[in-house]
Amino acid sequence: MMIAKQTQPEPKNLISSEKMEAFIKRIDFKKGEGLVPVITQDTRTKDVLMLAYANEEALRLSFSTGLAHYWSRSRRALWKKGETSGHVQNIRLIDTDCDSDALLYLVDQIGVACHRGTWSCFDSVSEEHERAKP
Amino acid sequence: MMIAKQTQPEPKNLISSEKMEAFIKRIDFKKGEGLVPVITQDTRTKDVLMLAYANEEALRLSFSTGLAHYWSRSRRALWKKGETSGHVQNIRLIDTDCDSDALLYLVDQIGVACHRGTWSCFDSVSEEHERAKP
Repeated sequence: MMIAKQTQPEPKNLISSEKMEAFIKRIDFKKGEGLVPVITQDTRTKDVLMLAYANEEALRLSFSTGLAHYWSRSRRALWKKGETSGHVQNIRLIDTDCDSDALLYLVDQIGVACHRGTWSCFDSVSEEHERAKP
Repeated sequence: MMIAKQTQPEPKNLISSEKMEAFIKRIDFKKGEGLVPVITQDTRTKDVLMLAYANEEALRLSFSTGLAHYWSRSRRALWKKGETSGHVQNIRLIDTDCDSDALLYLVDQIGVACHRGTWSCFDSVSEEHERAKP
């Protein structure tokens, strides 16, 4: 029974369905024609890793799976971060700002965030990260 | 002579004109119809303070004055952060991401970042900041 549960894990909802629905309802997706910008920050280092976009579905999946999902503007498709690279982002918290038109994903980054193989999509952050290594 | 210099300070250019022009040239303002999203992060705490937007003029002024400037989408006007409140942001570094369509302002925040009087526009960040106070 335990093994079955481990191989078929329950969805890892970050918050209750009611809280998720209330949160999603607050978000102003209209301003950005269905998309809101998402700042992704690593929980442990507090480094800013990337800026991406989410539509309602991506936000909903991020909450319900605990893994960061975005909307890829270039591919015009839902994007589960790390789906091919394995560099997933385990979400610790999702927040929005004072006018509910931006999101903050606080994540534990597995591997690196940038497709170039760097820690962050921002070079100065990656450089600082490299310098801080023991 | 010294006093005259102090009352009429030289513009505090963050980088040389050549570097600034090269940086601005790289930024993809077209994707967002003249605007790019800006993540503003406090240098000392590494807290994410806000997400705003910059047009080319705002970015140029941020570089040339060392104070964060944005484009206010609601007021459709250039916006020097803290102009009325005094809560200015002294810029330490400006960076862009891997596809040059987002900016990161690393700042020393004077006072608080949010118009509501909270440290950050993101509530979870403000709450964490309050908890961390001695």
